[in-house]
Amino acid sequence: MKFHVSAQLEYEAKTDGVLILNVHALRAPQQAVFDEQFVTEPYIRSEELFAVNGENRLIRLEVMQPGPIKISYNAIVDNNYAQKDYKDINQPSIAHIDAQVLPYLYPSRYCQSDKLFRLANHLFGEIDSAYEQVVAVTNWIHDNVEYQSGSTDTHTSAFDTVTEQTGVCRDFAHLGIALCRALTIPARYFTGYAYQLKPADFHACFEAYIGNEWVLFDATKLAPLNGMIKIATGRDAADTSTANIFGEINFTSMQVSCMAAEQNFIPVYL
Amino acid sequence: MKFHVSAQLEYEAKTDGVLILNVHALRAPQQAVFDEQFVTEPYIRSEELFAVNGENRLIRLEVMQPGPIKISYNAIVDNNYAQKDYKDINQPSIAHIDAQVLPYLYPSRYCQSDKLFRLANHLFGEIDSAYEQVVAVTNWIHDNVEYQSGSTDTHTSAFDTVTEQTGVCRDFAHLGIALCRALTIPARYFTGYAYQLKPADFHACFEAYIGNEWVLFDATKLAPLNGMIKIATGRDAADTSTANIFGEINFTSMQVSCMAAEQNFIPVYL
Amino acid sequence: MKFHVSAQLEYEAKTDGVLILNVHALRAPQQAVFDEQFVTEPYIRSEELFAVNGENRLIRLEVMQPGPIKISYNAIVDNNYAQKDYKDINQPSIAHIDAQVLPYLYPSRYCQSDKLFRLANHLFGEIDSAYEQVVAVTNWIHDNVEYQSGSTDTHTSAFDTVTEQTGVCRDFAHLGIALCRALTIPARYFTGYAYQLKPADFHACFEAYIGNEWVLFDATKLAPLNGMIKIATGRDAADTSTANIFGEINFTSMQVSCMAAEQNFIPVYL
Amino acid sequence: MKFHVSAQLEYEAKTDGVLILNVHALRAPQQAVFDEQFVTEPYIRSEELFAVNGENRLIRLEVMQPGPIKISYNAIVDNNYAQKDYKDINQPSIAHIDAQVLPYLYPSRYCQSDKLFRLANHLFGEIDSAYEQVVAVTNWIHDNVEYQSGSTDTHTSAFDTVTEQTGVCRDFAHLGIALCRALTIPARYFTGYAYQLKPADFHACFEAYIGNEWVLFDATKLAPLNGMIKIATGRDAADTSTANIFGEINFTSMQVSCMAAEQNFIPVYL
Repeated sequence: MKFHVSAQLEYEAKTDGVLILNVHALRAPQQAVFDEQFVTEPYIRSEELFAVNGENRLIRLEVMQPGPIKISYNAIVDNNYAQKDYKDINQPSIAHIDAQVLPYLYPSRYCQSDKLFRLANHLFGEIDSAYEQVVAVTNWIHDNVEYQSGSTDTHTSAFDTVTEQTGVCRDFAHLGIALCRALTIPARYFTGYAYQLKPADFHACFEAYIGNEWVLFDATKLAPLNGMIKIATGRDAADTSTANIFGEINFTSMQVSCMAAEQNFIPVYL
Repeated sequence: MKFHVSAQLEYEAKTDGVLILNVHALRAPQQAVFDEQFVTEPYIRSEELFAVNGENRLIRLEVMQPGPIKISYNAIVDNNYAQKDYKDINQPSIAHIDAQVLPYLYPSRYCQSDKLFRLANHLFGEIDSAYEQVVAVTNWIHDNVEYQSGSTDTHTSAFDTVTEQTGVCRDFAHLGIALCRALTIPARYFTGYAYQLKPADFHACFEAYIGNEWVLFDATKLAPLNGMIKIATGRDAADTSTANIFGEINFTSMQVSCMAAEQNFIPVYL
Repeated sequence: MKFHVSAQLEYEAKTDGVLILNVHALRAPQQAVFDEQFVTEPYIRSEELFAVNGENRLIRLEVMQPGPIKISYNAIVDNNYAQKDYKDINQPSIAHIDAQVLPYLYPSRYCQSDKLFRLANHLFGEIDSAYEQVVAVTNWIHDNVEYQSGSTDTHTSAFDTVTEQTGVCRDFAHLGIALCRALTIPARYFTGYAYQLKPADFHACFEAYIGNEWVLFDATKLAPLNGMIKIATGRDAADTSTANIFGEINFTSMQVSCMAAEQNFIPVYL
Repeated sequence: MKFHVSAQLEYEAKTDGVLILNVHALRAPQQAVFDEQFVTEPYIRSEELFAVNGENRLIRLEVMQPGPIKISYNAIVDNNYAQKDYKDINQPSIAHIDAQVLPYLYPSRYCQSDKLFRLANHLFGEIDSAYEQVVAVTNWIHDNVEYQSGSTDTHTSAFDTVTEQTGVCRDFAHLGIALCRALTIPARYFTGYAYQLKPADFHACFEAYIGNEWVLFDATKLAPLNGMIKIATGRDAADTSTANIFGEINFTSMQVSCMAAEQNFIPVYL
């Protein structure tokens, strides 16, 4: 289904510097991007980069002088979300899994799966199928971690969240990823626009590799899975920051929206 | 200069499983690999994979039955090490740095540069050139961290080492990487064979991105820089494990060697 | 010198519960407390407890019903601060130190001195006298840690602060204590009222055991040492909370003041 | 019942220094100590100290010269263990609990109860009685944490163990304490001699404050509760080290034993 996504970001540059933004909807076989507009005010020389997995679309802005910066991104995106039945899908053996997928089994900055091995296997090790394991992980996080705005910061990791049991979408995603990897299920971080998310903001959830494809899960259950527009994937939030800032450029405000561009949306949850 | 590198690894498989090894010398413009031999006993179906950055050469072994496994790797490798003077090299601006290099600025599992920002800048922020900063980082680690076999484990990270000040080559490398990234200098983990390393073992050090190339640093100072044969690079040790094991396959023994295959080696240190 | 100290605290009880407050000025040979008033509105049955080291004066309030609670504490306190010259004082050997002092050598919740041993000894190990070591610790914290309101929370510990290098008075104190203990100098947490502290608030600093007495240090340098009125000491902030709350009783507001009750105050800093 | 307990410790002093040992059986109303012998070879001037809670019996040895040190402690101790039924005991309200008990509600070095609040309440919050909560905590640790010699070190804390789920008796005790405190049940660390513990060693478990008395729990279930001889209690292992060493005095060997001095021992477990 088609959505109109939009992000308005404002910064105040105190010096020159570099701003690398990751707000563009990803172009992929399953996701078509139309009518895209990206405007900066004042005009700033920019360059599109493809990063991490060669898919994420970064915009690098070379800020040459101090002053306010307004950035506006708009696009119509069709996410072509297809609901499938994964219950009976065979999980590929590590012996045959694609080499590009292997790094998503390794621990990363915010997803210390190496420390969660016993816990993950105690909680979910006896569940038969990989898909059912990830469903159980998702439900367990949803039932045990309290969504609380401001309760965590950019240093918070899955190792913290598994015990402290509070966080925001980023923390829910990191914990999901860490638990999956500890179960030998490749998992990666997903950022995007999310329809019906309240309050409107960028959203984070995670994808697990089930039966040779990446399947979307959202432990927050705050937005329907078929209302997600993918911006980027990566090992964790370190790979997929909305903005990487070099120099003294301060973030001042942000507005994000995701509206249906077609009618008759029927929300799909896990 | 040419070296004869060799690794003999032994495992005991209790069940079937998968073993992904990363012991092959990397093939790269600066490093030529000759006369390579890789033998398993018994014969095990294997496959070469190219991972992480498309360069690291992984061997995936599909272990079909229990029993002992002997693995033997031998090669002649010319590392073509060239000593250069980096002191006056201009560090590229983030505005022009290659997109493939950007991820090496982000924090990773064992290199939480996001937490070391103030510390790195207090210690090294006033040094002018990027190269001199990395030299100072390397010397500071060497002077402050005690090399102590067995003092750390696979969960130890740069955030631990910066305060606990003890570790092995892996920890020295992680701390070097984390400090570089905190100074906005891209840095990555390097594993390899090392000539004159005592006791003989795989070695770990790090590369910093200086003036558009990756330059090798070794904060342990335990082996000459021109005696290193690269196996792999990655964000940190999570990317470059000698062995990733899936299933109950136990490591039993290892022998690593790196001998000069030419005469007249003149060691180069920082 | 005499000061008029005052604390006004407000809570909203949602249920019954227990509130244990630690706002009373400590009575000690060096500190005389006059004209003390403690009032709750509405009246709540309370009891004075002596805790941790038998000196801290806790007030336990048994809240029997929901509703707003106003607490007011006022006193005139003479801290009898005496500036001494500790430079040439002999530090007592551990062989002769008082048994009551030993626990202040052990690591505690927020002061993991066991992890800072090498670092403390690298930084301060070559300084001769214990007093000069603590002075150096205090100055090092002041020079390297950035005072930043809101940058830390109640879980932040010295192990975090030594690397992250940001925090509030509580964090400065914890780091000072941890470094002293790592140098085998007993150290404890100090909470109190502080004259000329801006903005007015409870303050935290630390005491080190030098030549058989507890000597006050303040790594924040935000208030004069002779303007401190002691409320409590303990191993760290875990022992000396202003309020321990049991039940759903929410903190709503606080006003703290410390005014000179005599003239001619001459501030003393380290 | 009576037990013959014994500890033989050997050290090698490289320099002079101080050794503070905590191996003496505690004298308490419930525990009678007979025929006690404490011998050092060579003779070293020693002093008995009472620490932490005024009960633990420390021996401070002033080591005046380098050389080997042999320490031998022997005693007959009657632990007078009485099995009681705590199921229907009323837990005292915080409003009436003894002030000396309050510190055992606070977080400590190895028992970061402040971080385990939500987790403890999710797992055990709905159990009615305090005693049943501690029983559930004990069983949960026993079922989820793997006893694995050498898997942890002296820096490992409850916050690590709750996720990593491996450790030794010390770690089991710390986690039990942290979970109890997070449930507002005072809890403290217990070290002692343990009958039938294999291999023979000092043991650690924990006491929870139930109905105005300290009740012993052992999440390892490695030794019967009525076979424990108490050496010390404290907030955690930081308070109750077998040996605190100041100066270069190296531990070389240890033998611990606990034998029945009466017949007809009937083991009691939880």
